[in-house]
Amino acid sequence: MPHISMPELPGILAPMAFRPNTAKALNFLAQTLLRGPSPLTEAERELIATYVSRKNNCTFCTNSHLAVTEELWPGPREEVSAIIANPETSQVSRKMKALLAIAAKVQQDGKNVKSEDINFAKESGASDTEIHDTVIIAAAFCMYNRYVDGLAAHQPEGGSPIYKEVGLLLKQKGYESSTTFPANL
Amino acid sequence: MPHISMPELPGILAPMAFRPNTAKALNFLAQTLLRGPSPLTEAERELIATYVSRKNNCTFCTNSHLAVTEELWPGPREEVSAIIANPETSQVSRKMKALLAIAAKVQQDGKNVKSEDINFAKESGASDTEIHDTVIIAAAFCMYNRYVDGLAAHQPEGGSPIYKEVGLLLKQKGYESSTTFPANL
Repeated sequence: MPHISMPELPGILAPMAFRPNTAKALNFLAQTLLRGPSPLTEAERELIATYVSRKNNCTFCTNSHLAVTEELWPGPREEVSAIIANPETSQVSRKMKALLAIAAKVQQDGKNVKSEDINFAKESGASDTEIHDTVIIAAAFCMYNRYVDGLAAHQPEGGSPIYKEVGLLLKQKGYESSTTFPANL
Repeated sequence: MPHISMPELPGILAPMAFRPNTAKALNFLAQTLLRGPSPLTEAERELIATYVSRKNNCTFCTNSHLAVTEELWPGPREEVSAIIANPETSQVSRKMKALLAIAAKVQQDGKNVKSEDINFAKESGASDTEIHDTVIIAAAFCMYNRYVDGLAAHQPEGGSPIYKEVGLLLKQKGYESSTTFPANL
């Protein structure tokens, strides 16, 4: 049961409906980080969001962002789960391996990111802006995940058809309109 | 040395100057959470931000938000450091003790917040909105702290006169204009 009385919506949609002012700022940030101008593709940025959410064990965020990453991914959609499970043994680019390794450090503590992690990313072709965007996306999902889990928002299990629907909506509409998601979600 | 080439500004101001689009969204969120409408006072919200930043050992965020909390605090300014060091033994209200305990759980992992933490907060007079705002502020500082530390932004030591100046500026102007902080900061 959620810790506070919120509208009966899944995951982050519940506290966002409870507190629309906060939702506006959180959605604007998500839209900026995940859909705004960046040298990383939308698929790459959603992959980072999914990877960090999985490390934080946030069911709703992991499955929602996994679904939208699969929608956006340029290769076979099965690749996405394989990358999230273990980037190192996956087919993802060396640059994305390096950026996901930085994201994993940020998920633990920003201070865990060391010069060697940055050097490896730069040697693998990552620019300063790509490193910056990886760090802030990873950091932001440490916020979104805590928001959902910290209020004990209702989170449908992975495999629920809700996630497929959320993934399609986020692909088509992005984040700025996500407080007006259909009420049946 | 910072991990990427950023303007030579202290703490979060460096990556914000490096990436103004991101800064706009991060400042809008900080303004919403810390200065927007809330049943918690600005001082109480800054106290939560300081407390979480301290737990994350983020030097710049801790000292900046400590400075602005001291500016806003209605009691003697020495009280603020005592509360941050140990809310339980401090003079802060029972409600704020309960909310800071929730913030400390969120700092670790949102899932650590249990029904008994929420019940104690409610029995101490906290409303659903106050609990909500505590959770999202604590979660947000898990982001801001990781952003600063994850990029190894330059962070002046506590005691630097910069923090007093930042505290006064944040009291007077809030966050929306903070990307235009004087270049000498």
